[in-house]
Amino acid sequence: MIGAGGVATVAAFKIAQNADVFTEFMIASRRKAKCDKIVEDIHKAGYKLDIKTAQVDADDVEQLKALFSDYKPELVINLALPYQDLTIMDACLACGCNYLDTANYEPKDEAHFEYSWQWAYRERFEKAGLTAILGCGFDPGVTSIYTAYAAKHHFKEIQYLDIVDCNAGDHHKAFATNFNPEINIREITQKGLYWEDGKWVETEPLEIHKDLTYPEIGPRDSYLLHHEEIESLVINYPTIKRARFWMTFGQQYLKHLEVIQNIGMSRIDEVEYEAPLADGSGVAKVKIVPLQFLKAVLPNPQDLGENYEGQTSIGCRIRGIGNDGKEHTYYVYNNCSHRAAYEETGMQGVSYTTGVPAMIGAMMFCKGLWNTPGVHNVEEFDPDPFMEQLNKQGLPWHEIHDGDLEL
Amino acid sequence: MIGAGGVATVAAFKIAQNADVFTEFMIASRRKAKCDKIVEDIHKAGYKLDIKTAQVDADDVEQLKALFSDYKPELVINLALPYQDLTIMDACLACGCNYLDTANYEPKDEAHFEYSWQWAYRERFEKAGLTAILGCGFDPGVTSIYTAYAAKHHFKEIQYLDIVDCNAGDHHKAFATNFNPEINIREITQKGLYWEDGKWVETEPLEIHKDLTYPEIGPRDSYLLHHEEIESLVINYPTIKRARFWMTFGQQYLKHLEVIQNIGMSRIDEVEYEAPLADGSGVAKVKIVPLQFLKAVLPNPQDLGENYEGQTSIGCRIRGIGNDGKEHTYYVYNNCSHRAAYEETGMQGVSYTTGVPAMIGAMMFCKGLWNTPGVHNVEEFDPDPFMEQLNKQGLPWHEIHDGDLEL
Repeated sequence: MIGAGGVATVAAFKIAQNADVFTEFMIASRRKAKCDKIVEDIHKAGYKLDIKTAQVDADDVEQLKALFSDYKPELVINLALPYQDLTIMDACLACGCNYLDTANYEPKDEAHFEYSWQWAYRERFEKAGLTAILGCGFDPGVTSIYTAYAAKHHFKEIQYLDIVDCNAGDHHKAFATNFNPEINIREITQKGLYWEDGKWVETEPLEIHKDLTYPEIGPRDSYLLHHEEIESLVINYPTIKRARFWMTFGQQYLKHLEVIQNIGMSRIDEVEYEAPLADGSGVAKVKIVPLQFLKAVLPNPQDLGENYEGQTSIGCRIRGIGNDGKEHTYYVYNNCSHRAAYEETGMQGVSYTTGVPAMIGAMMFCKGLWNTPGVHNVEEFDPDPFMEQLNKQGLPWHEIHDGDLEL
Repeated sequence: MIGAGGVATVAAFKIAQNADVFTEFMIASRRKAKCDKIVEDIHKAGYKLDIKTAQVDADDVEQLKALFSDYKPELVINLALPYQDLTIMDACLACGCNYLDTANYEPKDEAHFEYSWQWAYRERFEKAGLTAILGCGFDPGVTSIYTAYAAKHHFKEIQYLDIVDCNAGDHHKAFATNFNPEINIREITQKGLYWEDGKWVETEPLEIHKDLTYPEIGPRDSYLLHHEEIESLVINYPTIKRARFWMTFGQQYLKHLEVIQNIGMSRIDEVEYEAPLADGSGVAKVKIVPLQFLKAVLPNPQDLGENYEGQTSIGCRIRGIGNDGKEHTYYVYNNCSHRAAYEETGMQGVSYTTGVPAMIGAMMFCKGLWNTPGVHNVEEFDPDPFMEQLNKQGLPWHEIHDGDLEL
């Protein structure tokens, strides 16, 4: 596993809880001390799995290759930054490793994500007899598997898909992002995008929003965003007439976001800046990306867990033609408590809902249930064993048949 | 003159306009190119004064001493940063130069200003036969001279003093500060303070505010801040029962300020940060003060002039016992148009209202009207020749006798 942030911490805990499947495990990241800390916490919590740690810069293919050649992992679980997907995939190909990630590649100098870069690796993975599993977190990930499950069991034809993501938690901070602030702010400040009648429709950032009612939570203002799973789902389910993604934001959050943009701190270009060297040896002119510096002063998402109250609710609202030939609606979702996630892993619910599916995806691969050479989005695999594990691994799902989807 | 920002640019223009008084003039700052640019603009505007320029780091007493020994200025006009007041005063003492500034000393690692540090130089300036004129901008500066003028001509006893500072300009930017953002944000985010019945009363930051009506502008929400001129005025006019300072802020400005604090960008402590070197030679760990980095991405106050509409209105609202033994009120103020300031000097009104008084103070010294060895706040000198120059140099003042002060 590459990465040692909140999601990686959760995935590591869940891997240690499933030591019957995962017999050998290494955590590597740019700072080895962070990996060692995760291992220490896991052992303190009473799990016995022997976990190796290593230092690696995931931007550097050569370093990755050296590590993979040495440790010889069967599967590399990429929980690093989206910028690093391609270097890690390159190293996997070079060293004969299978691959799994939770977020698609995005170039560092452009706030823009799409699967094309990773789909371009299809033939190479296929020829090498290696499996790459893309987007195996919650959204993308579980939301795509929910859709596959609905298609397999409940619908002859999925026509309308709305993925709804609500975080109704309260971390008692004036402002904090729930995952990497850099990635979060890039995602939200870009234009909205949805699929309708065979083409993409672009909106201004946060232009479209409406109140949606979430189970056990109530109505929350929800904003249409572009989200990567839509891109593969409309290809894999061509009957879909409209696919959209919605995420809740509070007024306080949006106010902070607006100001962050107004003052220039969401910029992703480099600013030249002169600053004293930390070792006191003089002054240096450095290049600083404002958004990356902002990340350094904002609360660390990994530190939000304590006192985080409330829950997340993420699911798929689907309308289409059922197996009986009639129109049906289907809402499948999970609610996750921030407090319960924290008590189990020391991380809040947003890290938990991404880290658990990453582990289940790895489990699917290790059990031989999800290995087909090539590069695949998760909805291309059998959803049933994954759905079964969700109930066992802390993310139980619920269904509402023929309810009012509000959409 | 040390400094090459907006205020310095205005002061340089006004010095060039008064070449009968100022026969020799040098502008020095950390970046000589900025000084050369000011000279170029002044000469382009048709003024003939020969102006020298030099490079100097005002944090470095030895560099200042070398420059002063070489150029031998009679008066050093300090328009650098408030952190640099003491190094410049030290160099003046060492080289036998007189001194003038517009803002009192403030240590870099603490958002706190007071005159004590500079008043501690009194005896040394006195013994050296040198004059130091403190706080000769608009506020402090003109507001203190307005008070001295009121005391000299209209009041036997000043009892209540409210200094009111309104910027009703619109620069058409989402957020920008009107002077150095670092100094501005430090000033506003600290606790409020006012003088009442012989002691200082502290308030939470921006706790007290009320609508005040400004001439030609109308009502504007005005916030009680601590401001340095109050500190010397209550000592020099011991009959003052209450002295306060008010400044207008719009809701948009305050919203940005709140968020800047919430996200940690107003912090003045150092953050260790690793960044690539600008010359591409590697990566360095540097120390960055978030508020200073924010300054680097915010609009430069010197660039606000173009399209800046509206005007500033700054004045003193005074109540006390008049020379006739009866209670009177007196409101003396200046309104300054951002556009007119820009057309004359290329800078907006906030720079203009500070730079013009700095030049007039220097003129008072050079004409021999304001030179008394020691360290002095401006109200200690004769206000009359200064008030006369305000009318001639672009900052005419107006009086309202026995009007409603609203306070």
